[in-house]
Amino acid sequence: MFTAEDKAAILVEALPYIQQFYGKTIVIKYGGNAMINDDLKEKVMQDIALMKYVGIRPVIVHGGGPDITGFLKKVGKESDFVAGLRVTDEETIEIAEMVLDGKVNSEIVNLLNRRGVRAVGLSGKDAGLIKARKKLATVYEGEDTKKVDIGYVGEVEQVDTGILEDLLKQGYVPIIAPIGVGDNGESYNINADYVAAEIAGALQAEKLLLLTDIEGIYKDFNDKSSFISTLHLPEAKQYIKEGIIAGGMIPKVEACLTALEQGAGKTHIIDGRLAHSIILEIFTSRGIGTQVVR
Amino acid sequence: MFTAEDKAAILVEALPYIQQFYGKTIVIKYGGNAMINDDLKEKVMQDIALMKYVGIRPVIVHGGGPDITGFLKKVGKESDFVAGLRVTDEETIEIAEMVLDGKVNSEIVNLLNRRGVRAVGLSGKDAGLIKARKKLATVYEGEDTKKVDIGYVGEVEQVDTGILEDLLKQGYVPIIAPIGVGDNGESYNINADYVAAEIAGALQAEKLLLLTDIEGIYKDFNDKSSFISTLHLPEAKQYIKEGIIAGGMIPKVEACLTALEQGAGKTHIIDGRLAHSIILEIFTSRGIGTQVVR
Amino acid sequence: MFTAEDKAAILVEALPYIQQFYGKTIVIKYGGNAMINDDLKEKVMQDIALMKYVGIRPVIVHGGGPDITGFLKKVGKESDFVAGLRVTDEETIEIAEMVLDGKVNSEIVNLLNRRGVRAVGLSGKDAGLIKARKKLATVYEGEDTKKVDIGYVGEVEQVDTGILEDLLKQGYVPIIAPIGVGDNGESYNINADYVAAEIAGALQAEKLLLLTDIEGIYKDFNDKSSFISTLHLPEAKQYIKEGIIAGGMIPKVEACLTALEQGAGKTHIIDGRLAHSIILEIFTSRGIGTQVVR
Amino acid sequence: MFTAEDKAAILVEALPYIQQFYGKTIVIKYGGNAMINDDLKEKVMQDIALMKYVGIRPVIVHGGGPDITGFLKKVGKESDFVAGLRVTDEETIEIAEMVLDGKVNSEIVNLLNRRGVRAVGLSGKDAGLIKARKKLATVYEGEDTKKVDIGYVGEVEQVDTGILEDLLKQGYVPIIAPIGVGDNGESYNINADYVAAEIAGALQAEKLLLLTDIEGIYKDFNDKSSFISTLHLPEAKQYIKEGIIAGGMIPKVEACLTALEQGAGKTHIIDGRLAHSIILEIFTSRGIGTQVVR
Amino acid sequence: MFTAEDKAAILVEALPYIQQFYGKTIVIKYGGNAMINDDLKEKVMQDIALMKYVGIRPVIVHGGGPDITGFLKKVGKESDFVAGLRVTDEETIEIAEMVLDGKVNSEIVNLLNRRGVRAVGLSGKDAGLIKARKKLATVYEGEDTKKVDIGYVGEVEQVDTGILEDLLKQGYVPIIAPIGVGDNGESYNINADYVAAEIAGALQAEKLLLLTDIEGIYKDFNDKSSFISTLHLPEAKQYIKEGIIAGGMIPKVEACLTALEQGAGKTHIIDGRLAHSIILEIFTSRGIGTQVVR
Amino acid sequence: MFTAEDKAAILVEALPYIQQFYGKTIVIKYGGNAMINDDLKEKVMQDIALMKYVGIRPVIVHGGGPDITGFLKKVGKESDFVAGLRVTDEETIEIAEMVLDGKVNSEIVNLLNRRGVRAVGLSGKDAGLIKARKKLATVYEGEDTKKVDIGYVGEVEQVDTGILEDLLKQGYVPIIAPIGVGDNGESYNINADYVAAEIAGALQAEKLLLLTDIEGIYKDFNDKSSFISTLHLPEAKQYIKEGIIAGGMIPKVEACLTALEQGAGKTHIIDGRLAHSIILEIFTSRGIGTQVVR
Repeated sequence: MFTAEDKAAILVEALPYIQQFYGKTIVIKYGGNAMINDDLKEKVMQDIALMKYVGIRPVIVHGGGPDITGFLKKVGKESDFVAGLRVTDEETIEIAEMVLDGKVNSEIVNLLNRRGVRAVGLSGKDAGLIKARKKLATVYEGEDTKKVDIGYVGEVEQVDTGILEDLLKQGYVPIIAPIGVGDNGESYNINADYVAAEIAGALQAEKLLLLTDIEGIYKDFNDKSSFISTLHLPEAKQYIKEGIIAGGMIPKVEACLTALEQGAGKTHIIDGRLAHSIILEIFTSRGIGTQVVR
Repeated sequence: MFTAEDKAAILVEALPYIQQFYGKTIVIKYGGNAMINDDLKEKVMQDIALMKYVGIRPVIVHGGGPDITGFLKKVGKESDFVAGLRVTDEETIEIAEMVLDGKVNSEIVNLLNRRGVRAVGLSGKDAGLIKARKKLATVYEGEDTKKVDIGYVGEVEQVDTGILEDLLKQGYVPIIAPIGVGDNGESYNINADYVAAEIAGALQAEKLLLLTDIEGIYKDFNDKSSFISTLHLPEAKQYIKEGIIAGGMIPKVEACLTALEQGAGKTHIIDGRLAHSIILEIFTSRGIGTQVVR
Repeated sequence: MFTAEDKAAILVEALPYIQQFYGKTIVIKYGGNAMINDDLKEKVMQDIALMKYVGIRPVIVHGGGPDITGFLKKVGKESDFVAGLRVTDEETIEIAEMVLDGKVNSEIVNLLNRRGVRAVGLSGKDAGLIKARKKLATVYEGEDTKKVDIGYVGEVEQVDTGILEDLLKQGYVPIIAPIGVGDNGESYNINADYVAAEIAGALQAEKLLLLTDIEGIYKDFNDKSSFISTLHLPEAKQYIKEGIIAGGMIPKVEACLTALEQGAGKTHIIDGRLAHSIILEIFTSRGIGTQVVR
Repeated sequence: MFTAEDKAAILVEALPYIQQFYGKTIVIKYGGNAMINDDLKEKVMQDIALMKYVGIRPVIVHGGGPDITGFLKKVGKESDFVAGLRVTDEETIEIAEMVLDGKVNSEIVNLLNRRGVRAVGLSGKDAGLIKARKKLATVYEGEDTKKVDIGYVGEVEQVDTGILEDLLKQGYVPIIAPIGVGDNGESYNINADYVAAEIAGALQAEKLLLLTDIEGIYKDFNDKSSFISTLHLPEAKQYIKEGIIAGGMIPKVEACLTALEQGAGKTHIIDGRLAHSIILEIFTSRGIGTQVVR
Repeated sequence: MFTAEDKAAILVEALPYIQQFYGKTIVIKYGGNAMINDDLKEKVMQDIALMKYVGIRPVIVHGGGPDITGFLKKVGKESDFVAGLRVTDEETIEIAEMVLDGKVNSEIVNLLNRRGVRAVGLSGKDAGLIKARKKLATVYEGEDTKKVDIGYVGEVEQVDTGILEDLLKQGYVPIIAPIGVGDNGESYNINADYVAAEIAGALQAEKLLLLTDIEGIYKDFNDKSSFISTLHLPEAKQYIKEGIIAGGMIPKVEACLTALEQGAGKTHIIDGRLAHSIILEIFTSRGIGTQVVR
Repeated sequence: MFTAEDKAAILVEALPYIQQFYGKTIVIKYGGNAMINDDLKEKVMQDIALMKYVGIRPVIVHGGGPDITGFLKKVGKESDFVAGLRVTDEETIEIAEMVLDGKVNSEIVNLLNRRGVRAVGLSGKDAGLIKARKKLATVYEGEDTKKVDIGYVGEVEQVDTGILEDLLKQGYVPIIAPIGVGDNGESYNINADYVAAEIAGALQAEKLLLLTDIEGIYKDFNDKSSFISTLHLPEAKQYIKEGIIAGGMIPKVEACLTALEQGAGKTHIIDGRLAHSIILEIFTSRGIGTQVVR
């Protein structure tokens, strides 16, 4: 238990950080454990509300893989995976969109509105926010690779920030489901890390925070002492090339690089399993996770 | 086939109607056949786009009963009905919300955006748009009636028009799924006619248009000559009391009365099975369907 | 006679054109038969009103030669002409200005206001709209040409668009009489085609429409098959040089070139003798007349 | 000749008056000698420019009777007068409008623009500024009076100040010709004193100044000592009733009463034959003429 | 020492208070020990900066008695006191104003600007902020009282909030020295508690905080258990009448009553000797001191 | 004595000057005799009020050396001078700031507010207006010079015009005391001529007026015929180099050069001992003093 004096002192300690980020846009990729565990979920909502109230403009992009899998199972639909990506036929994309937009997104919107934050749910369809195109999966066949069509899995072609800027200007918090629209009006499911990165870039955001289920990046995953606090852009590219950054870390780091190259200020891969990880990163001197910077 | 001169003449003929509704808000309940038949759907989208481009501010509220039924069937869930209302348990409301918000709503948004209209999908959760409460079903037992709890079926408690006004002011077309939020953050499925009526009232809309699958209201359904073109508010109440207006017509007429009593200008029950029924009603001298007025 | 359904279909057909010109400025030179024939006059007013109501910003420049001639006759004043231009002494310019500004202009303003369009009459004097200088007539003497002073006939020196932009921004339709002001405050009568061209250029208008009493431009006036639908800027200059474009067509085409070179989007020489020629050109796929483009 | 020090002292003396009228609207009826004599005309323009530059919002309404008479003579048209009002047939009103709007008005506009004031000429037709109706002449036959139709002579029915407020807000000086529009679009010539009064009332102007060719009002015209400096509203009505105010003074005083009753602050009948009479009235302690106040 | 997680939790705990006061105006009377002790001074500045950064609009009114006394001593000027008020001759008010405006005020402004808060120093003279009049001292002579003129000691006659509202709207923090201006331009020294109260009232502030050197109000000063946490307006008046509130507490409580009666929300007498007393009061559940409410 | 007609004529004569400076910013260094003599002081206030009321945006920077000296004497503090600059220890700067900000500045503010001008007093501390650094005095030792630390005497490092622009935009007149703030929050006394110059430059002012106690600049101070009306920038630099401009004139001319080089339009060294010298310079054809121009 803390005394009121302790509390006052801690609030004051946060002041320089509040000053630093006043009026700035911070994009958060919300996913993983922090979206499943009810207690963590509650704390993420508090963090976003606090950001908003001290003058930051948060923009949330969420994932939803587990919910999609759960719902597909419910309707008795099994998915094939190619190179770790779900083969997404017409029925699958329809269900994915329903789950992402009609369930996951609207639940986040609801939780924030109940905390006095005026949140508005969007998908990439709203006001043409995310233009997408098909993304082929890369399959390794011995030494060679080939590109395989796995259906309605997409990548961001263009972000039209109009609706985001209009909403931010009027004090709303946009919550974005990672659905994009193709040239013929078809929907694509897009990796939420990449969507968050593209949006952070398009908005020239101050920061991109990726909430993950790891502590950050290690040079050698088995050696805790090899933890990387700060990774510079050229270094990060080198590490990917050399295979030091591999597996599930690749999309995270690539997302950071994309955001930086398009004009975001700083990017952070942080551990969403920690309570209040967002506040820890933004409002205290304790950097958590790995920051990828220019 | 029409000559260019014919076309010019017809455009000019629409001028007085364009003048009359310039800058005015018109709420449209979109449902029934016009939402199922692909050709009609296409024409409704054209009508909304035209409205928008000649300076009207359209607001769309849609239903989606058949889609919900279809999806429940898909997951093997059967519904009971009480007094014509679906008994809606937790699983059902979750699916209803996904279908309405993540499928029906986003499809309409997409169709309009592809026509150059900047549409934004909303549910009653976004920015606290629709506060709702549970609605009990009324069951007749002989001469008596009793109220039955049928789960997450709701009615509008309050409309917060903030987000609608902000979007309209900036030129967006709001598309609204008929989901409301209760005191504890729970979702309610609400009859879209009533949602449209409450929103028309709260926005002090110029007009409320209800797209239905009938031609309008008859004093005697079997006598085509008893068609009612204009129904005044007190008369309408009288007819409901006397049973002249009955069955499926009751919610339609009640929606009109609600909208009128809360400040909407005029209300219209029109036949959505007609191609371009919205344009016919708004831009030509041919009144279609039944108008309910003060 | 058209059915209401036909009418709706035709309105919808105009939608892409409405979208294309939404918020754009279109300058119309109004003159010739369309200003004399009462039925055509009525239809031009309807066309302008329609443009305004679907979100276009029309700017009208009118001529008035026949009215000036009529009035001069009334006061018993005869005019000499040099190279087709009226020799304009002090008394003549006074009468010309009275007729253009006090009769022709105010009649157009009145007709539009009666159709619910808020029109405001201007001459080049208002808020310094048109700065002018004397224009000498070119007279051919055998092989040589000489410049002859014919009094208060002028050409545009500079357009100050301030008042136009202020009025357009507030939703008014400016109606402009082709009178300019010289360095010493003296008035000049200026060819309305040129005034319209300079204003279209200064406003960076989307389109300039010149209403004329011909169908458009022919390579050979006696061969109907030689009609030119589209004329490109370099070609147009070439044709003038070669004498293919000659006589009364020269000022029309020169006006188009001036507008294009100063930044107007497209220019059109259309047949004002056709009913609703403006709407035909703007809102239907039927191009009428000759367009002169970059 | 004054020293620079004298001049500075005089400017400073005007300061309290400048403060008092900063941002206020003052309507001036401009007519009589001040509009004929070139030197006076020049000085009126200087006065208006000064008003504008020290932050006052002047609105000018002008007459033009002598010019109309002159022009009618030119076209060989003779006028009958009934009860001092010109019988105004269709040809006469056309000429009156041309002279007022196309000559007198545009000359004032031009003179002001040349002094760096952005003046814009208006007639009652522009943007529906003055709605008018026919005014019958009152003819005395012995003890009785009868009403006689004298054609297109009108009175103000309604002033729509929209265009005036839009222009004033953007720093323009509106110059208004006393032409009104009837229900069928017909023009009416209206007494400029009354037009100025109605406009002063509709704008809730701080002051109405009527420039006349007399020194002000006398109780007994032959007794210079009976000059009235200040006349209160009830007194003024009494004097008219009793015939103390008679003849040409009646419309002047009635105009003042109309302006006051509709909300103007103060009204002044001043001697336009004095150089800089406007400045004398507004910026010095020397009241000139007769003020009619509430 | 706190862990980062503790800190995050505490920040989140402050969220409801941040929400509650977002965009609200809070007037703080800054004086006493908190203005003398350097450590407390530092903490008050942190508190004000924090308030500003979380969206509150703070307005500071400061005292400065000890500094005035110190400076008077420096110039060898001794003060008489009547009824606890300094007799203030011309020389004294001049020095008081110099000290308050030129030393105390500018030091606070400087401290805040160095923390990134844009503070602007004002006295009651700036833009006519505080109109004052002479306040006579009340002297008891046995049972009777008499009023004694003690020079340039004043009371607030009127607050013109224009400059405050303009500065607050643009994000500045106004720091106000308690000097008022009389009818003849003479300065008055006014009790800062009363100035803060009048300003809180005039701004319809959410709260008035008076920083004092006591813990709050006791019914019986010798009985710590008689501490009053909340005092209602009628009760407070009663206590003053009955002498329960007496001595130095009277002006504090009267200031609270004045603020409440003129429209401030709540008032608080808090202990400025506590570190971060402002934050404790505003951002934690621990109410400190005595609140005086309606 | 002047007739009202004379007065009107003189007001009109000022019109071109009023037009020329409408909306322009003019910075005035107020000091010397004009700040001591009560009659001159009164006239300067009238001049500033007039400027403001005819649409000019005046900004006043004042000195106050004699008042500081007087007050130091009062507290028995003697000052040393090095190279004409007061050695300024901590006690001295504290008193200087109190006198400048708390006495001289607030007196000017008060005088202007009483004339209906909304003046706001500022020092360089307010909203970080003037960032300063220490200025060393230059002492000549035979042929050499050395730099001597004389305490809290400063020079302008940077002007942050934010607060000035915000106040000017809202119609206030800023009155600035020449105090700057160093990196560690310490105050510096700065020569007011230089402060005015830097502010004129930073605001891109139309004019800088320096009120001095001389008639202007002479090539040879003993030869009245050598008066310089206009001095061009390169010439001025040359004259300083050659010693033609020397002594107390150097800071005046250097201030002019600084203002010009940073973007002010014109600069004037005028004789503040003349009544209404500001008005004479700005509103009449009589140039007074010496203008230093680009």
